[in-house]
Amino acid sequence: MFSAKKYTSFFSTLTLLSAVALTMNNATATDMKQQGQVKQVDLPKNIIMVVADGMGPAYTSAYRYFNDNPATDEIEQTVFDRHLKGLASTYPAPVSGYVTDSAAAATALATGIKTYNGAISVDINKKPLLTVLEWAKQQGKKTGVVVTSRINHATPASYLSHNESRRNYDQLANSYIDNGIKADVYFGGGWKNYIRDDRNIVNEFKQAGFQYIDSYSQLTELVHDKPVIGLFADLGLPWALDDSNKHRLTLLTKAATKQLKNEAGFFLLVEASQIDWGGHDNNIATAMHEMDDLAKVMEYLESFVAENPDTLVVLTADHSTGGLTLAANKDYRWNPEILRTMQHSPATIAKNIVANDQLNLQEINQWLNFDLNSKEFQQIIQVNASYQQATTLHLLLSATEKTAQKAPELKEFYRQAILTIIDKRTNTGWTTTGHTAIDVPVFAFGKQSEQFSGQLDNTDIAKKIFTLLGK
Amino acid sequence: MFSAKKYTSFFSTLTLLSAVALTMNNATATDMKQQGQVKQVDLPKNIIMVVADGMGPAYTSAYRYFNDNPATDEIEQTVFDRHLKGLASTYPAPVSGYVTDSAAAATALATGIKTYNGAISVDINKKPLLTVLEWAKQQGKKTGVVVTSRINHATPASYLSHNESRRNYDQLANSYIDNGIKADVYFGGGWKNYIRDDRNIVNEFKQAGFQYIDSYSQLTELVHDKPVIGLFADLGLPWALDDSNKHRLTLLTKAATKQLKNEAGFFLLVEASQIDWGGHDNNIATAMHEMDDLAKVMEYLESFVAENPDTLVVLTADHSTGGLTLAANKDYRWNPEILRTMQHSPATIAKNIVANDQLNLQEINQWLNFDLNSKEFQQIIQVNASYQQATTLHLLLSATEKTAQKAPELKEFYRQAILTIIDKRTNTGWTTTGHTAIDVPVFAFGKQSEQFSGQLDNTDIAKKIFTLLGK
Repeated sequence: MFSAKKYTSFFSTLTLLSAVALTMNNATATDMKQQGQVKQVDLPKNIIMVVADGMGPAYTSAYRYFNDNPATDEIEQTVFDRHLKGLASTYPAPVSGYVTDSAAAATALATGIKTYNGAISVDINKKPLLTVLEWAKQQGKKTGVVVTSRINHATPASYLSHNESRRNYDQLANSYIDNGIKADVYFGGGWKNYIRDDRNIVNEFKQAGFQYIDSYSQLTELVHDKPVIGLFADLGLPWALDDSNKHRLTLLTKAATKQLKNEAGFFLLVEASQIDWGGHDNNIATAMHEMDDLAKVMEYLESFVAENPDTLVVLTADHSTGGLTLAANKDYRWNPEILRTMQHSPATIAKNIVANDQLNLQEINQWLNFDLNSKEFQQIIQVNASYQQATTLHLLLSATEKTAQKAPELKEFYRQAILTIIDKRTNTGWTTTGHTAIDVPVFAFGKQSEQFSGQLDNTDIAKKIFTLLGK
Repeated sequence: MFSAKKYTSFFSTLTLLSAVALTMNNATATDMKQQGQVKQVDLPKNIIMVVADGMGPAYTSAYRYFNDNPATDEIEQTVFDRHLKGLASTYPAPVSGYVTDSAAAATALATGIKTYNGAISVDINKKPLLTVLEWAKQQGKKTGVVVTSRINHATPASYLSHNESRRNYDQLANSYIDNGIKADVYFGGGWKNYIRDDRNIVNEFKQAGFQYIDSYSQLTELVHDKPVIGLFADLGLPWALDDSNKHRLTLLTKAATKQLKNEAGFFLLVEASQIDWGGHDNNIATAMHEMDDLAKVMEYLESFVAENPDTLVVLTADHSTGGLTLAANKDYRWNPEILRTMQHSPATIAKNIVANDQLNLQEINQWLNFDLNSKEFQQIIQVNASYQQATTLHLLLSATEKTAQKAPELKEFYRQAILTIIDKRTNTGWTTTGHTAIDVPVFAFGKQSEQFSGQLDNTDIAKKIFTLLGK
């Protein structure tokens, strides 16, 4: 963590920079260098940066086939297909090798500087780095963050805060007040860190003039000219597949843009946080439905740009997660059919199996919304034996004090069995529960979107956004 | 196969089309539609289409890190980074699902039409399809193919021939003469199919006025105004890692462009065929060195375009192979260091281990050009026991006639052990020995290269090339 002194000095510098910038900033920028030429650039009024956490190129390819209408001969174009601009490299600072985590990648996207894995908008010497959101705020724009993780998770925190470690969730939550309120809209999860026994940060936001909501239904009741913090879950929101609204990021993004629209323009960060969690889980069902929510966000933003052509939308990922591949095991097929009809996450289905007294094929099929064949049902039946075996082993090892691992959970065994069945049916491959170093796709539309074409590095995206914000 | 009648009718149509086209083709095309507008387009004189077989986006990302100079702090830009334009989808005709093979993908790239897996430039009804190479020839351009596979392998055959199955290698070889000679330069492998007991096609090429060479050293002796067939191997060329010239595709491409340069221009297909084979083998060492040969080809083509600015170069892949991921097994690292110094393929190293009387760590390290640790050497030592076990099992099963599988080979056991050690060291992941459905990167530079930006389908590439050839 940083001393108060360090912060004071950092924010003094920001104030100075800001004063200089305000003098310079007259809706054009002279330093947008392209192909060696200095051009006068017409700046967008609004910038919407969308980060799809974990969405490597396999995810957007997969979504095309997931989204394919089997009733037609052609493969339908997706919103991603309409706006692809190129790819971006994601490697962190050399100290962390070639494979980034979400914090270093979000720092690169937010500040234009490479740092070590785990860092929240501090450099390799742990010095705070100015973020595009902070800069936009200083230029007099409204700002906002809309995420499906908690609002102090690595990606939003890298736009809003500075910390030596992404793991310092309470410190990050505190900083949203202590280091000055930097946004006008905060939507996501986070009760655990914002309404604590030792400190109620939601109340502090209220005292600072914020509206607070904790259910989607309250989105329609928001007062336009008043900032808002909306927390809808303890940590992340439920999976899109399990949520009361399966396109909840779309719902929140619509509300945020409505709230932020103003004469001076706005900078909004939207994060589809849980594509990454689908990847970490090696869970193609949840990942595809998170992608579907993101696709609807992008379709909404197409209509927003149509009505507000002075808006730039940029979408990229921080890295790819899971080593997802569309086909596996020598077999030349990828079959997303069962994924299209699923209505519940494998975790929820597993919980429901456990809650039932006995295994009922018909009921399980209803939950899955596709029919298990007899071999697959056999795999479900065998779960109990595997679980009993693991429990016995755990008890034995615990007795000899050879393990501190927690006891096996039956629902986790069912969840894994369902994931295995889905991977086999769809022929989906995974190589890791972590991240990989593959380049990620970059999409852009709206004003100045052509600036994002070709091969970029993740730091280029922040650099271009700074320039388009008049820096 | 097609009847002579079908072919005659097909080529009559081609001749007609060709006559019409020659009247139309005056170095502009009126039907290059972009953003809804019909534009007059200035046509490139030369088009070089490079197909990197199997090179999904993980391969170009991997090559950046493989190519990184560890002595510098920055990650060096690659030739691929300089010319990325977007991504292309690769799915075949609906009858083959979402995952393509090389034949259907090459047919799409060569003709602009989706077909079934296995098809060589015939449609789903097995009707021949006009290829961009055939069309270029009809326009009076010289044409050529340079590949590291045999010259009648799926990709080159899809530009030069028509057959219901890529497996009909002898038929495909015959067709290069029987259906009219369509190219002025053929470089690659293929003695097995071109110099046969029943037919010596190389002699037929000679009788048709071709030069024939069978070693790289003869490339300098070629007569410019005479067509040439150069076959340098029975099937594919040796791995780049094992070849007498580790950049043999670069060498052949240089010779081909020199040979093809003429007033009317040329169409050249270059295929880096063996990136795919590295993927099928789950062999990151050979794959990266095939990528290195391709990178040198592209660097040479940069200089060719600098000197001949009326040339268009397009590079893409037909699909991605192996489900390659850069990092695996929860571990956030990809370490290509040992790959950079390797001088021999794992197959060659395995053969050398077998040829030696006893296992000598120092000698194996010399072959690998990196040092095995004791655990890794242990894995090499254990190979013999695993092999003996497999041999015993094979003998038992053969005796009971329960298997027709061929006997285990010791060198294959060593090769697999080496691949395992390399994957573990580099932390490389694979999910299949087949293909996957991820979109592939598209690169272009030179005249009209901007036509290849954004999201494309593989068929768009042929359509654009047809247009740029005045069709």
